[in-house]
Amino acid sequence: MEDVRFFDRAGPFRLAEIATWVAADLADGSEDLLIEDAAPLSLAGPAQITFHDNPKYDRDLAATGAGACLVRGKNADRVPASCIALSVTDPGRAFNELIARFYPDALHSIPAWDDAPAGSGIHPSAVIEAGAIVEPGATIGREARIGRGTRIHAGSVIGARVQIGRDCAIGPSASLIHALVGDRVIVHPGVRIGQDGFGFAMGPSGHRKILQIGRVIIQDDVEIGANTTIDRGALRDTTIGAGTKIDNSVQIGHNVVIGCHCVIVSQVGIAGSATIGDFVAIGGQAGVMNHVTIGDYAQVASLSAVKDDLPAKGRYGGVPARPAREWLKEVAALQKLARESIAGRGSERGMSEDGREREPE
Amino acid sequence: MEDVRFFDRAGPFRLAEIATWVAADLADGSEDLLIEDAAPLSLAGPAQITFHDNPKYDRDLAATGAGACLVRGKNADRVPASCIALSVTDPGRAFNELIARFYPDALHSIPAWDDAPAGSGIHPSAVIEAGAIVEPGATIGREARIGRGTRIHAGSVIGARVQIGRDCAIGPSASLIHALVGDRVIVHPGVRIGQDGFGFAMGPSGHRKILQIGRVIIQDDVEIGANTTIDRGALRDTTIGAGTKIDNSVQIGHNVVIGCHCVIVSQVGIAGSATIGDFVAIGGQAGVMNHVTIGDYAQVASLSAVKDDLPAKGRYGGVPARPAREWLKEVAALQKLARESIAGRGSERGMSEDGREREPE
Amino acid sequence: MEDVRFFDRAGPFRLAEIATWVAADLADGSEDLLIEDAAPLSLAGPAQITFHDNPKYDRDLAATGAGACLVRGKNADRVPASCIALSVTDPGRAFNELIARFYPDALHSIPAWDDAPAGSGIHPSAVIEAGAIVEPGATIGREARIGRGTRIHAGSVIGARVQIGRDCAIGPSASLIHALVGDRVIVHPGVRIGQDGFGFAMGPSGHRKILQIGRVIIQDDVEIGANTTIDRGALRDTTIGAGTKIDNSVQIGHNVVIGCHCVIVSQVGIAGSATIGDFVAIGGQAGVMNHVTIGDYAQVASLSAVKDDLPAKGRYGGVPARPAREWLKEVAALQKLARESIAGRGSERGMSEDGREREPE
Repeated sequence: MEDVRFFDRAGPFRLAEIATWVAADLADGSEDLLIEDAAPLSLAGPAQITFHDNPKYDRDLAATGAGACLVRGKNADRVPASCIALSVTDPGRAFNELIARFYPDALHSIPAWDDAPAGSGIHPSAVIEAGAIVEPGATIGREARIGRGTRIHAGSVIGARVQIGRDCAIGPSASLIHALVGDRVIVHPGVRIGQDGFGFAMGPSGHRKILQIGRVIIQDDVEIGANTTIDRGALRDTTIGAGTKIDNSVQIGHNVVIGCHCVIVSQVGIAGSATIGDFVAIGGQAGVMNHVTIGDYAQVASLSAVKDDLPAKGRYGGVPARPAREWLKEVAALQKLARESIAGRGSERGMSEDGREREPE
Repeated sequence: MEDVRFFDRAGPFRLAEIATWVAADLADGSEDLLIEDAAPLSLAGPAQITFHDNPKYDRDLAATGAGACLVRGKNADRVPASCIALSVTDPGRAFNELIARFYPDALHSIPAWDDAPAGSGIHPSAVIEAGAIVEPGATIGREARIGRGTRIHAGSVIGARVQIGRDCAIGPSASLIHALVGDRVIVHPGVRIGQDGFGFAMGPSGHRKILQIGRVIIQDDVEIGANTTIDRGALRDTTIGAGTKIDNSVQIGHNVVIGCHCVIVSQVGIAGSATIGDFVAIGGQAGVMNHVTIGDYAQVASLSAVKDDLPAKGRYGGVPARPAREWLKEVAALQKLARESIAGRGSERGMSEDGREREPE
Repeated sequence: MEDVRFFDRAGPFRLAEIATWVAADLADGSEDLLIEDAAPLSLAGPAQITFHDNPKYDRDLAATGAGACLVRGKNADRVPASCIALSVTDPGRAFNELIARFYPDALHSIPAWDDAPAGSGIHPSAVIEAGAIVEPGATIGREARIGRGTRIHAGSVIGARVQIGRDCAIGPSASLIHALVGDRVIVHPGVRIGQDGFGFAMGPSGHRKILQIGRVIIQDDVEIGANTTIDRGALRDTTIGAGTKIDNSVQIGHNVVIGCHCVIVSQVGIAGSATIGDFVAIGGQAGVMNHVTIGDYAQVASLSAVKDDLPAKGRYGGVPARPAREWLKEVAALQKLARESIAGRGSERGMSEDGREREPE
């Protein structure tokens, strides 16, 4: 993470020290390598440590530019020569422990205020450009920046170090933490931006929180509907591309990247780490599974469930989402089969009584 | 819009001036007609301009009382004699431009405050009836009116010019803008009322915002669940009828009209311009498509998707929603066919391994 | 309810007086029995009155420890000897009227403030432990208690008598009323806890509100995602067990009991009175119907609808949710049937034109 704004980073740390923390053996001669940060496999540089624990990313491992990598012992020989392998039994867990070392405050959002002076909702260290308006009842956290022409409506909370560009409208009653916002962005009432992503390592005695040190980046001319939620990234940033329009009560998970000029209709859920291209349209109440990629200009019908990658430009629908033509043919064929079956069996004795009719709750 | 409260209207304008703005030719003699407002096709009067661009509304065009109408050239001769036709290539776009002329502030909600006096959340111009209570941390915008016996809970925001009747409870942490609320209404925490509807004209280089100058009307004895969102109308009002009860996290789009004494269960989504009768019940997580009409006393099962108009009094379910008896028979028939098919094929080698099993995310 | 904190209880009342209120005849000699409270059938004690109106609970009626019970006349002889039967035509309605007598303020949440002193968001009677932080813009209601090490972020509202334990993080912009919260709980932005459950007695002239006097209990180490809603119980408490993690925009109805260490993914809806065991996982956008029980360690696929009880430890999916193996076989069999049907009929003339293709809204 080149641009640390929301969590203060500790370190650098000697690799010998890191090896002790994660109980890994270390080849002689690499003890004094200074590691400055932890980073994802495909983004890490020579002064950074990363991890690998999923065969899906074997190729990224072979190409990583990281200085060191936590791996399972059986994968140690897949690590390139430029990178020092640290063998551990659970690389994901060990990496999460390193995040806690590099970002000791990562378990809690950076607070808007460290102190609570009476009578003002604007922290003295916040920078409000001339021509920006902060309504009564809004709170602007420390070192936050609000651009010219932007209005922060009553009841909204702008967290510490958050930056909001020019000519934006935020709220009422919205909250933004760990976020950087462009120009001419409209954030409707009750929107929640930048809270922790939902990440846990499951275990038999409970669930361990995976630290979330990324941010949310909202580019220019985005509009975000009332009560929509956008979680911040774990390591990389959650990003909403320029001109994208998002309706009410949409859920966008951590690490999601949405391209430019998309339209996302109400109550859609986009699970963590999904990647969505430019000019994509997603109909209401649809779901997108985690790690799925949707190509540019794809159109997804409402109520669909996108479980696999969808190529660019097509129209898709159904559960799971597939090309619309195929989906519609199958729906029609099944309806025909059902009706033929009913007609063929004559009167359906007691059907309406025995049937599993669902009452509106 | 007879009753302009939330946006200040400019004009009147000469028709000649309007024709220039939208690049339309004008028949001689009508240049000096004064146009006072823009209005929907079926509601417009002789001093108002409207538009037509959908064959579905040809009948409304023939009967319009508007003084002038934006139309495609091929439809100019459908305009009645009492109405002056202005031919344009894109009537919807041209009409949106006129809305921006008549309501120059329509792109942004009317702010709760123009100024920010310290130490109070109640704008000096707001009218709080004796016996109404505004808790600390609530914000009451300018020219808002709060009736006797109503309590505005902490953290709620009542926008400029909003009117709330008597014996209501609002919040905590709710926001109401562009809204008129009756008596004995309960608005639960986090409800969002009156923000812009989700309307955009799609284009190859991005999406143009369609202005939303309507209001939200909440009649007497309505109850609205926590974090539910109700968008304001584009031209007409979004309306919730007396005695209707709405559960948590329901989404109600712009222009939706819901009748009296309905019950709408949690997480339902009702898309823009849907019309719902009296005493309608809609089960949880169901969806209603835009422009659909549901008749009085209809009952819609949870998880259904209402894509076509539903007649009064019946029970409906499924995707798409159809009469419950028919739907349940088809579901049972398909289940039977599936089981026969499975039984007929004997052991299903490797099914559970190869199958597309979806893990809980 | 042994532990009344959020509504002040009236009474005790003589049984003769109660009989008058609900228009029931009373056997001689029981007029002077003092009734202190109203309680559910299975929990009521000898100084409490309860009701029975559902054959599903005949066994509970026979075993009730209540001092008196409202019943339909035909069920009067099912009441045990230790309990006085009061015959009424509508026991549920009569019981709700008694709740209104015992809890005369139950129609409205207990307000955070009775008065509105200027310049502070913390009620003078609230108890903030040393080491707790209340940010500007937060409101702490009367008699609320905030534990050491807990931070209440800006814009959050903590209602009257609410108790929050130690080392918690609440908000920004969350609201908690009628709730008791343990230690190390994380409540993300915009969460709504403790508002009325959605309960109405339907009638031909409208819907009568069923009073909701329970609470929400959040045990230690729970995490609750942004804009999630958790309603308080009607008579019993809504409870979230220790270590359970809930994602964004989940809806949890009144009386729901969730066990320990569950994982509930975004946009799930859990209807009233459902009971969920320990270590249960529920995938995104799934629905759980009211009064359903899900056993320990069960895993429910995303988008499923749980309509019937699910045994412990299995994996389930589909609408309605059934064992995953069975569900996946049926899905595969239907897909095969559809494809065979399509192939058998050759070219599907005009299918894509005539088909009911759903555009993204």
